[in-house]
Amino acid sequence: MPVPHLTTALRGPILELEKRILESMPAIEHWLRGKWQNHTVPFYCSVDLRNSGFKLAPVDTNLFPGGFNNLNPEFLPLCVQAMMAAVEKICPDAHSILLIPESHSRNIFYLQNVAILQDIMRHAGMHVRIGSLLPEITSATTIHLPDGNTLLLEPIQRKNNRLYVNNFDPCAILLNNDLSSGIPEVLKDLNQIVIPPLYAGWSTRKKSQHFSAYDSVAQEFSELIGIDPWLINPYFSPCGKIDFREKKGEDCVATAVDEILKDLQEKYTQYGVKEKPFVIVKADSGTYGMGILTVKDSADVYKLNRRQRNKMAIIKEGLSVTHVLVQEGVYTFESINQAVAEPVIYMIDRYVVGGFYRVHTGKSIDENLNAPGMHFVPLAFDTSCVLPNHSALPDSAPNRFYAYGVVARLALLAASLELERHTTVRPDQTLTTLQS
Amino acid sequence: MPVPHLTTALRGPILELEKRILESMPAIEHWLRGKWQNHTVPFYCSVDLRNSGFKLAPVDTNLFPGGFNNLNPEFLPLCVQAMMAAVEKICPDAHSILLIPESHSRNIFYLQNVAILQDIMRHAGMHVRIGSLLPEITSATTIHLPDGNTLLLEPIQRKNNRLYVNNFDPCAILLNNDLSSGIPEVLKDLNQIVIPPLYAGWSTRKKSQHFSAYDSVAQEFSELIGIDPWLINPYFSPCGKIDFREKKGEDCVATAVDEILKDLQEKYTQYGVKEKPFVIVKADSGTYGMGILTVKDSADVYKLNRRQRNKMAIIKEGLSVTHVLVQEGVYTFESINQAVAEPVIYMIDRYVVGGFYRVHTGKSIDENLNAPGMHFVPLAFDTSCVLPNHSALPDSAPNRFYAYGVVARLALLAASLELERHTTVRPDQTLTTLQS
Repeated sequence: MPVPHLTTALRGPILELEKRILESMPAIEHWLRGKWQNHTVPFYCSVDLRNSGFKLAPVDTNLFPGGFNNLNPEFLPLCVQAMMAAVEKICPDAHSILLIPESHSRNIFYLQNVAILQDIMRHAGMHVRIGSLLPEITSATTIHLPDGNTLLLEPIQRKNNRLYVNNFDPCAILLNNDLSSGIPEVLKDLNQIVIPPLYAGWSTRKKSQHFSAYDSVAQEFSELIGIDPWLINPYFSPCGKIDFREKKGEDCVATAVDEILKDLQEKYTQYGVKEKPFVIVKADSGTYGMGILTVKDSADVYKLNRRQRNKMAIIKEGLSVTHVLVQEGVYTFESINQAVAEPVIYMIDRYVVGGFYRVHTGKSIDENLNAPGMHFVPLAFDTSCVLPNHSALPDSAPNRFYAYGVVARLALLAASLELERHTTVRPDQTLTTLQS
Repeated sequence: MPVPHLTTALRGPILELEKRILESMPAIEHWLRGKWQNHTVPFYCSVDLRNSGFKLAPVDTNLFPGGFNNLNPEFLPLCVQAMMAAVEKICPDAHSILLIPESHSRNIFYLQNVAILQDIMRHAGMHVRIGSLLPEITSATTIHLPDGNTLLLEPIQRKNNRLYVNNFDPCAILLNNDLSSGIPEVLKDLNQIVIPPLYAGWSTRKKSQHFSAYDSVAQEFSELIGIDPWLINPYFSPCGKIDFREKKGEDCVATAVDEILKDLQEKYTQYGVKEKPFVIVKADSGTYGMGILTVKDSADVYKLNRRQRNKMAIIKEGLSVTHVLVQEGVYTFESINQAVAEPVIYMIDRYVVGGFYRVHTGKSIDENLNAPGMHFVPLAFDTSCVLPNHSALPDSAPNRFYAYGVVARLALLAASLELERHTTVRPDQTLTTLQS
């Protein structure tokens, strides 16, 4: 199977959509194969999904995945195999990579992610060193991790248009840093390959552009397997020129909320869904679950209190929010030990290599779970039925997770289209990055 | 890692060679990546290895692997992921494959292999039907397997130069049949892609050509990591015009045995090996462990009794042996529950996807284990140390198995070169096969 077999948190009958996806497996895999012949797959990617029982959709696509430490260790041989395919493309003639992580020197979970990523790449046959953007890393610094492993952070050196660390001249730079606070000077105009390209960072990338690309992917995919595209695609609308503190731009948000709630109610009626529709308002760039709001009435947009407005106004690293994405909220009906859960699917190159549940004991089924207090439950191999035959019950866990892997790969394809469009828009930066 | 983590039967300290391979991992992976840019990797392959503690070498390379049922089920997601890469190359624009297995209608172990192979391909998104060469399969026949799965064998139909089964027009033919008894008429001059090519079957392939190609691979690899090529390469010499029943051609065999034993004793002395050198005489084409003899003195070649001569004279499907390979015997020092064992490594495309131990309770460390009475022990994932860091003890199982995966891939590369040479020798058949 393209996805590892996983144990699922959702125990109810499989939704019609998942059944449809399962039945169309050969057509889907063939279609995806064709897509990757014409489009460049991102190096790696993680996708947050929500499964409402009637709908299965991506709600966020991360091009700098930071949770490899949350994957089930049993998945790691899959990661290595996929990594071999990925590195082949970027360094066919060399085997040294400089990994530049986020500057979270004290987030031990994140540092474990970096250590796992380094190990995956090493086992794919690469020399990997870690270059830190932290100003306090002025010499090679060993970090001891709870699992007994160590991480060596080294100061980045730049000579002319190349980056180095001590005695190490990498053929490529791998970013595990989403550039939320802008593109650091040291990364600009390099003669080395930078993967993902700089314009994939949040200083330029916009969620609305991603979901716009996802629109066309979902449309084509839905025609392929004969489903209503809404079943895999959340409504959305972008708003610019927002200043939550100054209460500017609220009308755009309120109008978008109204329209989405109206369209959504029609769909809920069509499919006999009894729940109340809701909408998520979030920063159009950035991650880490900051600046996210659940809205069930457009009037609420005007009634934010000071604390809420402050929270919406600033995301990671103190950046102001001027653009938001108003997006259909997708209920999650998955839970683990009574806590709400949403699956996060990990991909390297075009392969699904694992995933985990993001679980939050303090949140409800219509809230963002990417918030302080969340924890992670690795998706587990289900070895007892590792090769379900096609006559197996469609609600078996492996079959359900095939659908998760498919929808995650649709988001991956959307990311590929999104980055291609960017290439056209900003040839100057692209050429600097790609021709080196 | 490129190989799954495995539990090993060999408990002694890792040999120097394995340590050297482990240390050279980035260089090795880079070198292999380069090779696969210039050479066509076989679709799938299994390699029998022998680990004598001082030497680790392939002794047989099978281009129609028939033991997928012996793999640990935990490896199957790796198989599927590798299969996705493999099928991409043969059917980019279609997704239907006709699998032609061996004609062993009553070998339930082999039929389980076919069922697993079909499932792996299905989960890689292919439509797979099974076309039987058995004359008694005149209509679709369901075979019930012990694990509850079923296999549908269908009669092959040929119209013009294409093969079909009922209402199914495949884009490619996948052979899991080694063509020991010759190339069936029905497979000749097809307009469909045939994978592996017909000349990879034992009706044309010769082990001596494989090991000749392996010679050059082992030489280059040994220069790369700075080892004596003998540590991974068994001496060999081919003999033709043999008739064991008529006692013809024995001189060639005896001379080859003498020379190899002499060279071998020099190496044993050089490396301080106390064991007595031995030589294996086997049919130059064919498999199934038939026609194999252990020899420790060239005089023995002339002293074969009638039973031994008959056994050497005929291999699978009653074919006469006219060419033999005289090959250095490699002791196996691996054992499972006191029974001698040798690892068999499975590859799909260029990826190591699993393996198992071939174990024989009735054989000794200098005998061929591929004989009636053998059984199989899947190589197990070792999840407790799935990502060994480089400071891990070199004798940990995952590290040892990395070496097994590397040597198996050297044999895979040799198979690729061997088939390329064949392409040059027989352009007529090649073109028929490849241009379709």
